[in-house]
Amino acid sequence: MAVHMKLYDGGRAPNPRRTRIFLAEKNISLPVEQVDLGALQHKSPAYAAVNPLMRVPALVLDDGTVITESVAICRYFEALHPDPPLFGRGALAMAQVEMWNRRLELHLLFPVSHVFRNSHPAMKEMEVPQVPAWAEANKPRIQEFIRLLDIELKHRAFVAGDAFSIADITGLVAVDFMKPAKLAVPDEFTNLKRWHADVSARPSASA
Amino acid sequence: MAVHMKLYDGGRAPNPRRTRIFLAEKNISLPVEQVDLGALQHKSPAYAAVNPLMRVPALVLDDGTVITESVAICRYFEALHPDPPLFGRGALAMAQVEMWNRRLELHLLFPVSHVFRNSHPAMKEMEVPQVPAWAEANKPRIQEFIRLLDIELKHRAFVAGDAFSIADITGLVAVDFMKPAKLAVPDEFTNLKRWHADVSARPSASA
Repeated sequence: MAVHMKLYDGGRAPNPRRTRIFLAEKNISLPVEQVDLGALQHKSPAYAAVNPLMRVPALVLDDGTVITESVAICRYFEALHPDPPLFGRGALAMAQVEMWNRRLELHLLFPVSHVFRNSHPAMKEMEVPQVPAWAEANKPRIQEFIRLLDIELKHRAFVAGDAFSIADITGLVAVDFMKPAKLAVPDEFTNLKRWHADVSARPSASA
Repeated sequence: MAVHMKLYDGGRAPNPRRTRIFLAEKNISLPVEQVDLGALQHKSPAYAAVNPLMRVPALVLDDGTVITESVAICRYFEALHPDPPLFGRGALAMAQVEMWNRRLELHLLFPVSHVFRNSHPAMKEMEVPQVPAWAEANKPRIQEFIRLLDIELKHRAFVAGDAFSIADITGLVAVDFMKPAKLAVPDEFTNLKRWHADVSARPSASA
């Protein structure tokens, strides 16, 4: 079967956006097919044949092999195109990038996603059942984490150190995802605001 | 300041166990300090100074640098001791291990953890507030994922392919964590049961 490498993308959703920003930072362009999440196209039998978990993004390689999970797709291209390194270089930097990427997922991106999915009226048919009490339970945890993140960003340019990394990409999409989840970064978190302005000003942010 | 490398461990909790199994597979032994989660020792000011997010495990390096997040600690040792490779070797295998490790986290370990934390009486004081409706919402999703996982395991020995990887470690601790969460793997999932018996029989499983 002749297949050609293709990325199944999903518009404004945070995970497809992570992959697009990563590829833009690496200067990699790929054939892309849009999956219309609003029309529930990711739940169609055709897409379920690509990814039985019915999530975007998904990368199809030339031989038909499918890689899903945004960070797994990023790691594939990091191995093939190591420059600039976005997962760190050397044992310590690699561990620190992994640590911060996970902290930003576990304590920011995923909780913000839980708030959005369990409270936004537009998600009523996708998140069954919505659990509004779970959305509420996440809100103070998000505030507590961004307070810690603001302190961390006082003394360094980027989330995981002096170099831009995938942890900054995760942070950017997570903070931007707060808006549709009806959450806000308090003005007092000036270090976090400065970092957010910096990463938002990179050309990749509009990918 | 003279510090020596030390791992803050947390007994039976799934994340500390992931790190211990990984180190056992690599044949690495480290000085360990136990953090008593039952006594809320991870919430003490002394431990918060090590990890402000108050989670275990945490690795302290000789120079005092702290690495948290179980998978970040594993990646640190993977870089220093590449054999046997537990994160895959080569772009495709690395992506597939990352994909499966994340699938097992996002659709099994984390949902099981949500069920445990939001429904178990012993977690009443740690998970405030408990949201029993969120625990219930996760249960059918867990069943649906292990059904897919059983199909995947029909044609290969390990979660991410023919070689044991960190994805198997995540899967093992996730399935074992189902018991305290009062969840069970149905007997009909014979491929999943075979895989679980195999990985449980490895010496590392008791680490």
